[in-house]
Amino acid sequence: MPNISHRGQIMPASPIRKLVPFAEAAKKKGITVYHLNIGQPDIETPAPVLEAVRKSDFKILEYSHSAGNESYRRKLTTYYSKFGITVDHTEIIVTTGGSEAIIFGFMACLDPGDEIIVPEPFYANYNGFATEADIRLVPVTSSIDTGFALPPIEEFEKKITPKTKAILICNPNNPTGYLYSGAELNVLKNICLKHNLFLFSDEAYREFSYDGENISALQIEGLENHVVVFDTISKRYSACGGRIGAFVTHNRGLLDSVMKFAQARLSPPSFAQIAAEAAVDLPDNYFDSIKAEYQSRRDLLVTRLNTIPGVFCPNPGGAFYAMARLPIDDADKFCQWLLEEFSYEQQTVMLSPATGFYATPGLGRQEVRFAYVINRENIAKAMECLAKALEAYPGRQ
Amino acid sequence: MPNISHRGQIMPASPIRKLVPFAEAAKKKGITVYHLNIGQPDIETPAPVLEAVRKSDFKILEYSHSAGNESYRRKLTTYYSKFGITVDHTEIIVTTGGSEAIIFGFMACLDPGDEIIVPEPFYANYNGFATEADIRLVPVTSSIDTGFALPPIEEFEKKITPKTKAILICNPNNPTGYLYSGAELNVLKNICLKHNLFLFSDEAYREFSYDGENISALQIEGLENHVVVFDTISKRYSACGGRIGAFVTHNRGLLDSVMKFAQARLSPPSFAQIAAEAAVDLPDNYFDSIKAEYQSRRDLLVTRLNTIPGVFCPNPGGAFYAMARLPIDDADKFCQWLLEEFSYEQQTVMLSPATGFYATPGLGRQEVRFAYVINRENIAKAMECLAKALEAYPGRQ
Repeated sequence: MPNISHRGQIMPASPIRKLVPFAEAAKKKGITVYHLNIGQPDIETPAPVLEAVRKSDFKILEYSHSAGNESYRRKLTTYYSKFGITVDHTEIIVTTGGSEAIIFGFMACLDPGDEIIVPEPFYANYNGFATEADIRLVPVTSSIDTGFALPPIEEFEKKITPKTKAILICNPNNPTGYLYSGAELNVLKNICLKHNLFLFSDEAYREFSYDGENISALQIEGLENHVVVFDTISKRYSACGGRIGAFVTHNRGLLDSVMKFAQARLSPPSFAQIAAEAAVDLPDNYFDSIKAEYQSRRDLLVTRLNTIPGVFCPNPGGAFYAMARLPIDDADKFCQWLLEEFSYEQQTVMLSPATGFYATPGLGRQEVRFAYVINRENIAKAMECLAKALEAYPGRQ
Repeated sequence: MPNISHRGQIMPASPIRKLVPFAEAAKKKGITVYHLNIGQPDIETPAPVLEAVRKSDFKILEYSHSAGNESYRRKLTTYYSKFGITVDHTEIIVTTGGSEAIIFGFMACLDPGDEIIVPEPFYANYNGFATEADIRLVPVTSSIDTGFALPPIEEFEKKITPKTKAILICNPNNPTGYLYSGAELNVLKNICLKHNLFLFSDEAYREFSYDGENISALQIEGLENHVVVFDTISKRYSACGGRIGAFVTHNRGLLDSVMKFAQARLSPPSFAQIAAEAAVDLPDNYFDSIKAEYQSRRDLLVTRLNTIPGVFCPNPGGAFYAMARLPIDDADKFCQWLLEEFSYEQQTVMLSPATGFYATPGLGRQEVRFAYVINRENIAKAMECLAKALEAYPGRQ
């Protein structure tokens, strides 16, 4: 039998999905599991977005343009302009989810062995995309004690080598919820200009910024040829299954290169492009209620977490995630124990151990990520479970 | 400004799409262009396939399972069983188009620098996927004089090195339309067993086999752990824009590895999975009329081509492509000239120069590919144009 490749062997498994079998077993025992572990929103996809697809009347499900339908790209420029972002439709390449935009960026900007500096904890799938592109993610550690603020400039400069080609941020951040300030983006600007680096900015959660203004990397003046934004409709419109994202940059040479990757895979999905185009026409107040809902969940979650003895949860400024430090020996063990051995009134909680979000071995062992994608009533019940679990957990510290 | 990567520079542009600006210019001059250049079928997508999406009533466009909806994968096993192919639903990973299945195969089976032997001419985008995976495609040349039959076994064995990990075929073939025989597949089986290689079989055009039986690589007994089939609904149901394909293998270790790649990009498109699942329920006779239509187009095209002085077109057994040798100096120049300088009664023809389908420099300079995805009336008009063009072309040989 032929062997799979070394690359196929070292490709990381999803750290978030590895607990799924334990959750399934718990459910089979009749236990209610509160899913605070994954970023699948419970908010309904806006009806006009789904209706646009259901009312479509084309006869042939054709390839679209490799960069995405021009009508959609033109409309997206109006979406961006609402955030003060000026882009031309030719500066947008529609991708198959934000995932593909990230892979395109890694492939077109870095060669095998090159390095990207990324504040940790970070979105775990960046590891998989880095393996595919055969590049290295070099972490700089942000700390729960400072609420996961951008590490100081010296920490970045310590990590720069001749192989460093880019800095990657996620703003607001998954998994920490941290919202970067204008001053922090300015620090990144200076590093990128000084060392001639790309700035990759994953802005999947742009709309969900609660305390302070969200600033896109595309708004940083003087960094136009360095900035690439990875975007997606997934979280914004509860449209994760559409698989529509975008690769956005002012760098024309980079666009030319990425178009070659886009042409090789022919086109992004046609049905969901119709949905995505309709989404741009949603009224401006669409996000008001969604944002208010997430913010009220955040406030409930963070407040309740901080009342549990030994728990510390900094208040996240955006996205729909929060990271908390728990009085435990090992987050992986604890999260598995919650599903395998614990229940309170036939209920338990599924969380993501933070270890999967750190690249530095040993970090995050007392931290877990919460995705507040369930309603407040269930968040309250989940917090009650968690408080009881922390009392009962044999590895409490 | 930071530089794009070497990989981003050497990524090949689509040889099929590079003539598009010349076609657009011709149309602006009022010239009708018969598009025989790309594999976008003009056949309507079956109504029940589109209706399934339009009648869907879910409220949240959620991520699907990373391997695709279980209901769809289970249904696909009945699709395959109609061809005598026995697969379990856990041996199918639904991908974003056939393209993604190919990338997954390259990534999980080969390491950077490893080699795949592939009969040329071959589907041009394999070059792009090979660049992404940092692997080498090693051609063995099939000849128009033998109708593009599989090259003799010695030709394969001459190309085998310690870095050879797989053989890649497309059956029926794009761009040649060649349909591999059972005897030829047996030759490949023996090579793969002897040298412990994977056999990648791109079977996008399975249904479109006109002369003789289509045999899937999954039916080769004794090669179960070596065979990977790359599949897609794109051509089968005129559903190119859905972006639904499949990675199919009996090799469990490989499936485990590919699942990690599938999880990193989260899921294939949800809307089109509904369409694809409905397509499996089409009546068995659905393909009869489609196949008859393509076959009559082929017969017309090939017959007409062979009546033009100096033209030779072997009769392709499948797919919807034909390759012909023309009495010209240079296929790239000729195809551009057709759009830029020629017209007959305000009409011209757009073709694909064969050079983009060969890896060996200099091959295919007198060959072009025809995609018979326009109706017979237009094929007849296109052939009339081509005959006139070949009379007028200054580089005629």
